[in-house]
This record gives sequence, structure tokens and C-alpha cells, in this order.
Amino acid sequence: MFFDRVAVIGVGLIGGSFSLALKEKNLCGHVVGAGRGAHNLEFALERGVIDSAAPDAAAAVRNADLVLVAAPVAQFEKIFLAIRPSIGPTTLMMDAGSTKRGVVAAARRALGGKLARFVPAHPIAGAEHSGAAAANAGLFRDRRVVLTPLKQNRKRDVDAIAALWSGVGARVSRMTPAAHDQVFAAVSHLPHLLAYALVHDVSRRRNAAQLFGYAAGGFRDFTRIASSHPEMWRDICVANSDQLLEECERFSVELKKIKKFLQGKDAASLEKLFANARAARERWLNGGYE
Amino acid sequence: MFFDRVAVIGVGLIGGSFSLALKEKNLCGHVVGAGRGAHNLEFALERGVIDSAAPDAAAAVRNADLVLVAAPVAQFEKIFLAIRPSIGPTTLMMDAGSTKRGVVAAARRALGGKLARFVPAHPIAGAEHSGAAAANAGLFRDRRVVLTPLKQNRKRDVDAIAALWSGVGARVSRMTPAAHDQVFAAVSHLPHLLAYALVHDVSRRRNAAQLFGYAAGGFRDFTRIASSHPEMWRDICVANSDQLLEECERFSVELKKIKKFLQGKDAASLEKLFANARAARERWLNGGYE
Repeated sequence: MFFDRVAVIGVGLIGGSFSLALKEKNLCGHVVGAGRGAHNLEFALERGVIDSAAPDAAAAVRNADLVLVAAPVAQFEKIFLAIRPSIGPTTLMMDAGSTKRGVVAAARRALGGKLARFVPAHPIAGAEHSGAAAANAGLFRDRRVVLTPLKQNRKRDVDAIAALWSGVGARVSRMTPAAHDQVFAAVSHLPHLLAYALVHDVSRRRNAAQLFGYAAGGFRDFTRIASSHPEMWRDICVANSDQLLEECERFSVELKKIKKFLQGKDAASLEKLFANARAARERWLNGGYE
Repeated sequence: MFFDRVAVIGVGLIGGSFSLALKEKNLCGHVVGAGRGAHNLEFALERGVIDSAAPDAAAAVRNADLVLVAAPVAQFEKIFLAIRPSIGPTTLMMDAGSTKRGVVAAARRALGGKLARFVPAHPIAGAEHSGAAAANAGLFRDRRVVLTPLKQNRKRDVDAIAALWSGVGARVSRMTPAAHDQVFAAVSHLPHLLAYALVHDVSRRRNAAQLFGYAAGGFRDFTRIASSHPEMWRDICVANSDQLLEECERFSVELKKIKKFLQGKDAASLEKLFANARAARERWLNGGYE
């Protein structure tokens, strides 16, 4: 698996790390980057995250063997439309979007006859740091990458994309876009929303300074993901709003149940719930769910 | 500040670390431990976390110059009643409870004329690991300790307790029990409840294995506190149920607001909330709220 010329649209944490990882593993020749932030792109070039910077996405994609679209998901349709004329007959495309139904729908609308060249992908390697400055070659090591192939994709193209992600150390699996969006609403999108909600609420109180003053390690870790990129998460929440609403509803029901326990000072039910959660988490950490 | 003989009731993460910290800083002579778990106490003795083990709390407190009660808060009244006859005229007592109104009420009921010897304290140094095995001498370094002194306390006793905590590296401050319980309901007890709730809910689903299989670093950090000690957190939630219910209510309102944003695909409001939360968290991490 080797791609002579790789175009990365959006040289942020994911796009930049992908470029560095390919270089480290000698899986590519030249990486050209494009993106909205001129300053970020310049930084990426100076730091050697990319080999050259293109003035726009269409220019980057011209003559590329592989394209990675790693922008906030609301940008995808515009990007697909812009790059479509530059996509050559053997160019492979993939994305790094955190939602999949919306991305696939945008691809269907915008890519026309070139849809088959696009293999939807989601590397599970987020972090609260963003931009090329946060990029690192090891980001995908032992991380999962979910592919949600289209029926238009050729098997060998999907296999090539899978092999590439394996090549940078990731564990690749496949799902339907709908299953993907359901799973990640529960274990990623909802926690992000809850963390954002808590920090936002605390920050708006009259005694915010006092509250933050006593917040400690538990609060810090619980809210780490509330330092995530607001635009990226705005787009994820909008794109996956139906599944996320279902998760919010579920969580509200759970919270209501716990409120009842508190109202009744139902120590036994609280302890049972806590003990079950702790046991499940330990099992998870110990690989018991794999 | 030096205490010849220190009794630690409950040699867990906090009690054990307190003992180790005092020893490291040469702030005590002998530490005697007592607790419910014979195995844990034996381990603490073998590992040198304590110097001797007493058969029960009353025996440990006899002839002690300082007593630390570091048990789940629902145990406090029973412990106070048990140790009351052993409390000498110069014995100082404090606790490490994560709630303060309930602890103070239990002390009032159980300690009688010896109430003045008890200085309520809360070291903010929890962790998801518990037991003497998790104890370490550096646990309180740069951590906050909140004292909620009683009007019965002598100033010099409160100052002595404050000096001791400073001696092991903590930053000591003072509050009323009510203010304490309000602050920690928001920045500690609620996040614990939310983390427990999420893990519990995920673990009860038919596709729990799939969901945990794709849970990544964000989920891991968000739920770290769901590995906390179930009995300890049961007691905290029951003791602070009124404040915690208020926080749950507040959070439900916040969540309802966000659900509306999702229903309306209100990208601008979502981004604004996320950006505000991220900025507040960065400000907090950079000491901007101190």
C-alpha cells in the first residue's frame, strides 16, 4: 500500500496526524494540504506536517492518488462539490467525519458519478486539542477506525483504505452508517454534550469563580472533552441530532430515576447502580467487552 | 505542629495517605489504624502505612493526640458514639468527609461535651482507586482542604488542624458546612452521578458490548469517576441529597435547553454554548478563576 500523492483537506489534528503517520510508515510520497486557516496551513508546512500547501481543495486534489477530507462535517458538501472536477479516474477518497449518515448523503448529492471512489471512514482518535500543532504520527496507533462502505465502492478500494489505516497502527472495522451514528451518539456525542452542558452551566453562575476554585481532578477529567473544538462538535450534533436526541431522552429518563432515589434517600438503589457502573467500567477497561 | 499519637479510623486512600504524609513530613510519632476491613488493615500494617492496628475505633482513639475519621459518611455517627468515651481532654479530632452538614449534625448528636474537640475537614483528594493499597504520601500536595469550623471550636485548635494540612502540602480554606455542600454538589457530586448514570445505562443495553467496544478516550476520562467507591458515593449522595437534587434539576433544565437546540438544528446556539464552555474551561485550567 503506497500512495504517491496524498491530498489532505483540513490539516488539523486528524488530517495532520494522518499525514505524519503516512510519512513515518513510508506509505506515501508527497502530501499536499489545503484548508481554511492560512496561518494553520503555513504552520503545518513549516513544521513538515505537509510537504506543500495548495490554495484550495480543488487544487490539492488535482493529480492526487488519495484524498482525505478531514474538515468539520458541515463543510463536506461544499468540499465535495469543489473537488469533484479534480477527482481523477484512479483517485481514492475518504473522510474522517465523526458522523456518517450525513457525510454519505452529502457525498451522494455532490459526487455524482465519482461516488464509488469515496470510502467513508471515521478514525476514533479525537482529542481536546485541535489544529496542526496538535498533530502527531502516533495518533492512530491502537485506535479504532470505522469504515462505512457504500454499495458503490469496489471491494479492492475498501480493502486498500482498510490496509492503509492498519498500516498506521489502527484497528479497522466496518459498519453501516446508521449503526455507526447510533453507537457514537451513545458513547461519544452524548458525553461531549453532557460535559459541555456542565461547564457551561457552572460558568454562568454568579459564584462561578468559587465553584471552579474548588473543582478538582474528577471535574477536570469529566470535562476534558468540553475543551473540544466547538465548530466540529456543532456540526456533529446537528448532523446526528436525531440519534443524539434519543440519547438525551434516554439519559433524562435515567437521571429522573436517580432523582427519585435521591428524593427517597434510597441508599440501596443508589449503591446498586454505582456498583454496577463501576463493575461494568472495570470490565470494559480489562477488555471484558471485546 | 507535631502529634505524638495519631489514630486513623478508616485506613483507605485518604486515611492511609494522611498517615504516610504525616510520617514523610515528620509531623507525627505513632499512627494507629482501625477499620472494618481486617484484610485491608493487615495490608496497611505490613506495608507500613500505619504503625499498629487497633481492634476497634475506641481502642485506636485511647491516648491519641489526633484522630482522623476517614470512613464513608454514613458511618460517622456510629464511630463518634464508639470513640466518645476514649476522647481525652487534649485529643483533637477531624474528619475527611465529602459532605459537611450531615457530618456536623452527627457530631452534634454523638459527641456531646466533646464536640468542641472536633474540627470538620474535607481534603479534596479523591480518586477512583480506594483502599490502603492506593495510599500515597503525596496525595495532598497542592490539593485543597476545606475546613468548616464549629463555633464551639477553639481558634488555636482550628489553626493547628490548618497548619497540619498545610504541612502535608495542602491549600487550606474555610467555609460554612452549607456553602461547602452547595459547592461540592455542583463540581463534584453531580459529575459523579452523571458519570455513574451514563456507564450504568450503557451497561444495561442489549448492545453493551458493541457500545463499550467503540468507547474511546473521551468516554474513558468522562467516566473515570464512575469507578469510584460505591458505598462512599452512596453515602455522599444520601447525605447531600437536597443540594444534589437541586443540581440535578438545574442540569435537567440545561439539558432540556440543549435538546431544543438539537430539535431545531440550531447550529449557532450549539456552537455558542460549546465555545463558552471551552473558553471557561481554558480559563479555569489557566488559573483565571483564582
